[in-house]
Amino acid sequence: MIVLFTDFGLEGPYSGQLEAVLQQQAPGVPVIRLFSDLPAFDIRAAAYLLPAYAAGFPPGTVFLCVVDPGVGGERPGAVLEVDGRWYVGPDEGLFELLARRARTVTYWRLPPAAGVSSSFHGRDVFAPVAAHLARTGMPGSGAAVAERSPRSDWPDELHQVVYIDRFGNAISGVRATALQADALLEINGHVLHAARTFSDVAGSEAFWYANSSGLVEIAVNRGRASELLGARTGMPIVLRRPSG
Amino acid sequence: MIVLFTDFGLEGPYSGQLEAVLQQQAPGVPVIRLFSDLPAFDIRAAAYLLPAYAAGFPPGTVFLCVVDPGVGGERPGAVLEVDGRWYVGPDEGLFELLARRARTVTYWRLPPAAGVSSSFHGRDVFAPVAAHLARTGMPGSGAAVAERSPRSDWPDELHQVVYIDRFGNAISGVRATALQADALLEINGHVLHAARTFSDVAGSEAFWYANSSGLVEIAVNRGRASELLGARTGMPIVLRRPSG
Amino acid sequence: MIVLFTDFGLEGPYSGQLEAVLQQQAPGVPVIRLFSDLPAFDIRAAAYLLPAYAAGFPPGTVFLCVVDPGVGGERPGAVLEVDGRWYVGPDEGLFELLARRARTVTYWRLPPAAGVSSSFHGRDVFAPVAAHLARTGMPGSGAAVAERSPRSDWPDELHQVVYIDRFGNAISGVRATALQADALLEINGHVLHAARTFSDVAGSEAFWYANSSGLVEIAVNRGRASELLGARTGMPIVLRRPSG
Repeated sequence: MIVLFTDFGLEGPYSGQLEAVLQQQAPGVPVIRLFSDLPAFDIRAAAYLLPAYAAGFPPGTVFLCVVDPGVGGERPGAVLEVDGRWYVGPDEGLFELLARRARTVTYWRLPPAAGVSSSFHGRDVFAPVAAHLARTGMPGSGAAVAERSPRSDWPDELHQVVYIDRFGNAISGVRATALQADALLEINGHVLHAARTFSDVAGSEAFWYANSSGLVEIAVNRGRASELLGARTGMPIVLRRPSG
Repeated sequence: MIVLFTDFGLEGPYSGQLEAVLQQQAPGVPVIRLFSDLPAFDIRAAAYLLPAYAAGFPPGTVFLCVVDPGVGGERPGAVLEVDGRWYVGPDEGLFELLARRARTVTYWRLPPAAGVSSSFHGRDVFAPVAAHLARTGMPGSGAAVAERSPRSDWPDELHQVVYIDRFGNAISGVRATALQADALLEINGHVLHAARTFSDVAGSEAFWYANSSGLVEIAVNRGRASELLGARTGMPIVLRRPSG
Repeated sequence: MIVLFTDFGLEGPYSGQLEAVLQQQAPGVPVIRLFSDLPAFDIRAAAYLLPAYAAGFPPGTVFLCVVDPGVGGERPGAVLEVDGRWYVGPDEGLFELLARRARTVTYWRLPPAAGVSSSFHGRDVFAPVAAHLARTGMPGSGAAVAERSPRSDWPDELHQVVYIDRFGNAISGVRATALQADALLEINGHVLHAARTFSDVAGSEAFWYANSSGLVEIAVNRGRASELLGARTGMPIVLRRPSG
């Protein structure tokens, strides 16, 4: 299985162009569009979403991960094998949290791209590598084991909104296991208790909860946190109790 | 074939997470995203769309239907076999019109969910049942034939807008066969005649017609009914002639 | 492989309904959603996008192309074989640039539609023909080789914005090979130089470049041309130097 994890959009041609390459170079391998609307150019937000949303996939899954504001420049392309799953994409930090939390990780550097477009390495560089990985379980010619450059300035938990979903819920970069059940969180001036899930709160109350992928998420029962609390991608989420 | 009929959005991870479960548990079964942007939480709107848009599918098709504002609470999960097709999802009325209009219907109640997320039963409860149905043609262990709780307070035809499509057309919950060809419909102060299709009306005229799935739809030739008539989901559509 | 190239939207049921027909009538043939959000009803914009975005696909690919404001009316349906690839859809000019630039083109006229919906020929007429093409490599019964009606009033290069992508970039109907590398382009009062790609310009500078499908595209590094330059679909792009 190849999983798309990009900011290319569902609209427009880009996700389809990725799929066309995969279909030709790894025929018969199912392709899943997991996230195609990651916040555009926001590598850090994507880096905190990736380990949470990759966790449910079986060993051998290939994640084609592209958030690439530096396309055409000098940034490295990488392949990682992390806990039995494969990841390929441009590496300016996208794989930082995944690798930091891994039990086992091997890191390959891809050779510099040559003879391809300078603006769509997702299609021309990374999709062929993903197809090769899905077919062979090998990173492909020219890839070499290398040291990863860690982003040690990035925190273990990102106390920010990293994604607003279709329902207006605000997904954070904080793992629910990092908080106590009675933690109070503040966002945009609103202080919120935890609840187990939507049906446990009354009316249109706001709350935080451990979402179905293990991240802290801020929601409003039968309402939109993005509207009622003004939640936005990038907005800070502050721990009020117990004090962090 | 498994058909997705949800309010999960095309954006974000949820439809992809459904597909990943289906791919793993029913490998090789094609998955079609029919509706992924049903009006959020609006079970009744979805209930009037479902029989119209399911009608074209072949026997044995499995519809994974999730509009689930009560996720995590006590609402039942159900499997239905209706006129040779399968339907699975939370049942707070979503299957009402489908069952009411059926020639044959069998209704199973699913056992209470255990050991799964409390906020994503689409992925953790209903997708596995859909995969099981697609593989075996059986509702799965624990499901038991039961009485359905009808929503007898819901009308046979819903004289409201239930969906605004990409072109700004307003799809109603009224079957075209329920109206006479010379019926006049009023929406938001505008009174409309019927036409056969777009190319039959002049300029940017508004009209109603029997859409390609048999529902009454309000449209503007080469224009957007949502803008020119102010049509919105939930807005009433009144029969002006012949008087209902 | 069957490729969808439509203005039907990713939202709503229409792309899924196309896929359901294809799945039933050409089982096992992969379907790629390339463009599902072409500018609604804008045949001319689509006509300039089609040859650029079709170019990367292998021989035998079937493109299901539907931008059809005249659905239900008299406009002809067509099948084309152009340089080894197949195209099917309503023909009011959609295939003009494709055919004009072809090395080899054969044009079939489809028989008038009968016994189908008058508003969704994509599903009821063209998808079955696409499935038949994918299965057999033949246009199907009733199709007859005919003269194409050229749109000789359309220019070879369309100096307009034809699509705004997810990143706010403005894709034009001009092939990059038609411009000199030092050409200056003006859009909405802004005069722009060329650059190779995003990483070659400083800060949030605007520029034009040859995009990954060979079209002239106007972009802003780490910014949105649609916002910073006010670029919109249909907006003219004027060649300032060398004077055209």
